[in-house]
Amino acid sequence: MSQGPTARLLLSAPDRPGLVAAIANFIYDNAGDVTQADQHTDEEEGMFFQRVEFRLEGFKLSREEIPAALGEVAAPLQMAWRVRYSDEDRRVAVLASRQPHCLVDLLGRWHCGELPGRLVMVASNHPDHAELVQRFGLPYHYLPVTPESRSRQEQALLGLLAEAKVELVVLARYMQILSDRFIERYPSAIINIHHSFLPAFSGGHPYHQAHARGVKLIGATAHYATAELDEGPIIEQDTARVSHRDGVADLARTGRDLETVVLARAVRLHLTDRVLVHGRKTIVFA
Amino acid sequence: MSQGPTARLLLSAPDRPGLVAAIANFIYDNAGDVTQADQHTDEEEGMFFQRVEFRLEGFKLSREEIPAALGEVAAPLQMAWRVRYSDEDRRVAVLASRQPHCLVDLLGRWHCGELPGRLVMVASNHPDHAELVQRFGLPYHYLPVTPESRSRQEQALLGLLAEAKVELVVLARYMQILSDRFIERYPSAIINIHHSFLPAFSGGHPYHQAHARGVKLIGATAHYATAELDEGPIIEQDTARVSHRDGVADLARTGRDLETVVLARAVRLHLTDRVLVHGRKTIVFA
Amino acid sequence: MSQGPTARLLLSAPDRPGLVAAIANFIYDNAGDVTQADQHTDEEEGMFFQRVEFRLEGFKLSREEIPAALGEVAAPLQMAWRVRYSDEDRRVAVLASRQPHCLVDLLGRWHCGELPGRLVMVASNHPDHAELVQRFGLPYHYLPVTPESRSRQEQALLGLLAEAKVELVVLARYMQILSDRFIERYPSAIINIHHSFLPAFSGGHPYHQAHARGVKLIGATAHYATAELDEGPIIEQDTARVSHRDGVADLARTGRDLETVVLARAVRLHLTDRVLVHGRKTIVFA
Amino acid sequence: MSQGPTARLLLSAPDRPGLVAAIANFIYDNAGDVTQADQHTDEEEGMFFQRVEFRLEGFKLSREEIPAALGEVAAPLQMAWRVRYSDEDRRVAVLASRQPHCLVDLLGRWHCGELPGRLVMVASNHPDHAELVQRFGLPYHYLPVTPESRSRQEQALLGLLAEAKVELVVLARYMQILSDRFIERYPSAIINIHHSFLPAFSGGHPYHQAHARGVKLIGATAHYATAELDEGPIIEQDTARVSHRDGVADLARTGRDLETVVLARAVRLHLTDRVLVHGRKTIVFA
Repeated sequence: MSQGPTARLLLSAPDRPGLVAAIANFIYDNAGDVTQADQHTDEEEGMFFQRVEFRLEGFKLSREEIPAALGEVAAPLQMAWRVRYSDEDRRVAVLASRQPHCLVDLLGRWHCGELPGRLVMVASNHPDHAELVQRFGLPYHYLPVTPESRSRQEQALLGLLAEAKVELVVLARYMQILSDRFIERYPSAIINIHHSFLPAFSGGHPYHQAHARGVKLIGATAHYATAELDEGPIIEQDTARVSHRDGVADLARTGRDLETVVLARAVRLHLTDRVLVHGRKTIVFA
Repeated sequence: MSQGPTARLLLSAPDRPGLVAAIANFIYDNAGDVTQADQHTDEEEGMFFQRVEFRLEGFKLSREEIPAALGEVAAPLQMAWRVRYSDEDRRVAVLASRQPHCLVDLLGRWHCGELPGRLVMVASNHPDHAELVQRFGLPYHYLPVTPESRSRQEQALLGLLAEAKVELVVLARYMQILSDRFIERYPSAIINIHHSFLPAFSGGHPYHQAHARGVKLIGATAHYATAELDEGPIIEQDTARVSHRDGVADLARTGRDLETVVLARAVRLHLTDRVLVHGRKTIVFA
Repeated sequence: MSQGPTARLLLSAPDRPGLVAAIANFIYDNAGDVTQADQHTDEEEGMFFQRVEFRLEGFKLSREEIPAALGEVAAPLQMAWRVRYSDEDRRVAVLASRQPHCLVDLLGRWHCGELPGRLVMVASNHPDHAELVQRFGLPYHYLPVTPESRSRQEQALLGLLAEAKVELVVLARYMQILSDRFIERYPSAIINIHHSFLPAFSGGHPYHQAHARGVKLIGATAHYATAELDEGPIIEQDTARVSHRDGVADLARTGRDLETVVLARAVRLHLTDRVLVHGRKTIVFA
Repeated sequence: MSQGPTARLLLSAPDRPGLVAAIANFIYDNAGDVTQADQHTDEEEGMFFQRVEFRLEGFKLSREEIPAALGEVAAPLQMAWRVRYSDEDRRVAVLASRQPHCLVDLLGRWHCGELPGRLVMVASNHPDHAELVQRFGLPYHYLPVTPESRSRQEQALLGLLAEAKVELVVLARYMQILSDRFIERYPSAIINIHHSFLPAFSGGHPYHQAHARGVKLIGATAHYATAELDEGPIIEQDTARVSHRDGVADLARTGRDLETVVLARAVRLHLTDRVLVHGRKTIVFA
């Protein structure tokens, strides 16, 4: 069906007449073959958002020519835009701590060819997963942290990420708080999984909190990391039913399946260029 | 936010370049203010589908002028189209048999102003709901059926529907099979609720079938009625968890909440012009 | 299947060996025919909870004799217990404010015979629903509230509830805060529906809060009212998927279906004696 | 919390008074400490089912003495029973074909210590997963099949399973039909995952069938394999929402997450002795 690489155009602009027509004409005039298009008008904010995916085969402009041509269309309409290609090499790092399930799930998906990106490294403040990760042929960087070494460890981590040309950092139950400097280095490019239905049970030990409150559902939330802990734009969430029978360990076990699936969905949405961030919210063109 | 009436344009056409641009330009050239737009390309079928909603206020064409102008755009592109207005009077009839829950739910939603249409009549082959329906100020037509009177009863029903200028017939657990003639009279305009996750458990007594099979979820399916029983295009479905503890009566009780919600969602989707039928499937621009 | 009335025995006790045997022998010795039994041991709290339902037909003890006989079994084991009968007249009041959907849903369920209790009155601080409620043959008490009249209004309401011998008060989107005095009058017998997945978005305007936070699911929570607002023991919760397309009004519309179903489930669980409260949590023997 | 091994007693019997008391007294008389108990009466079938889990520490009977003592209680009441211990070594084999996702998921869970059993071998009619499985330190048996070699291949497989003392066989998208002889060798001990919400879309290519029918949800079903294909007792099912946008490949992708989770849940339920089979249905004491 979807043979050949596609271009994915993501746009946002102050809402005004003619935005859709401008882009539609740009693509039509260049003989573009649209495979998927989606748009959203936020009437409160007066903002327009669009995602258009079109085949590169037969398109009159080359990848090199697209930016300038698009810029000409976009500038008078005050459009912010970016374009990515389905065959780009998207380099992904996973950071983990003790708990293996999200890391193992991502390794498994990568092995099955389900990850629309390339895992290039795993780093952890624990040595536990070295052997497993190496079995999958990936470098494992063990970077222990103490209160004193925190800043140095982060610096080392940033160095490794830069060297590996990572563009997406996945926090697969990474239990270290990242500094503002780190987060600013990867804007809307660090995805964290929080093991609750945010904003409920933000902070530490959400399953303990959930158990103490006696909720009848537990949740998981994948969001972009921002300077404010657990407050970043939400990409994906889901919930699962629990009962009075479930102790904290049962909540955690049920929750692990939620966490892996919600995180994997968010990573896929990000890597297929389906997520736009506006303020503290996301537009997800699923 | 959404002040003033809107036009809802639904399109389908053999896929080809320029469809989106043609419609975008039509709306832009007439100073249209799009509030929502959605599209879908079915690559297997080579078909393009689109729904565009735009404000009438400020639009350069009047309701009377729109069809001809649209026709000019659509004809060369082989587009099938229809346009409806958000302030139209959509006249709805409900048919019920013994079981009251879907009827009661629709009456309640109508009372609460949640139904994007106008209930104008209820008909039934049982007398049971006369008082209730009349409490809501609606006419109730009791039309008993026997094997001998089936054809006459249907004829009477068709007469009442025509007289009431009904455009949507909702089968709210109406347990009579409609003749082909009846169904042809309301193409893609009769919505039935089947109390199973179709195609599982089509035909009679789906909760008994589900109980006998020992399924762990039950379902409900809202679909357009067609000449083939339980085979019409599916508009909406949902499921709910059950267990070995649930007897047939429990499945039916749990199922009633599914049925009412699934039917109500389908009716809303239809009445807000979000459903396109193509072959035996639907495109639902939710 | 379940012909004839049943007794429903609810027990809680500090956990110790022999609790199950004591009750099992009590029922067996009196020729009881158990139709459903469920139990739960909370190991953290060291507490045991049980619900046993058995037929009255053939049971050797009369309803009058059961309490004393049970007391003899329970006392040495420090069991707290209560027994209710499936054919008791459970008198229920609904309190509502402006929004009709939960009230209308409960009226509809009652009409369909789905409510395992008897609606005996509706009260509201708005006059809006008088006609509807009266159509269903129920008294409607319009009790307006001003900051000055709050205490008098509550006093009047308590008087009406007492007079109607109400044992369960359902807050069907009743937007007035009840005084501690009121709540103490009906311990674990006032069920409120909150239109969020508590503890997220407690307090006012949860759909506005949810919209501002950009969550991907919304929720509803039915809980017993306690002196601390939105902090009472949770009986039932559910969630529904939403997206960036949903404005506050859309969240509210989707949420209404959640609210009605979650509230109705909680009311049914309560009226069939399936809920035990322990501290700020519930054990729900569904 | 749950320190020390437990015994898990599973019972079924024709319903009659005194069953619960008999077991409760047996456990109490032997100083048993019950950690979980659940029961079910199927009134249609006149059958009683129970699962009781109790600590071995402090229990007056040794593992060797329990069967005879239980037999004495059970025989006069016509109880069928079995007892298993939480610390038993449950040996599990996984059979796979081309598709890796269920296999990879089970390997991952095993690695994380989430599988309440011990993976001892993987067999496949394809060579593809040899390296992966060996990375996890497990033997991989590549047993190709041709129409002519089918019987010999099965014989070899049975030999390997017997040699490895396997007690549970998991068909992780194993696309070969097993002979009746094979199935009879492992009664209620072969778990298959079917990639549809059975009984909808039984047989081959369920995602193609689902796509052709235009369903709005897809499902997955874990069931015990029996001589009738796709007709065995269902252990667990779940569904996920899809739309007109989803082609067959999208359904398959969404479905893979359903399949892995549903299969893993069923395997866990089986290995923790929570599933009783009665006729073509299961009682699942989750």
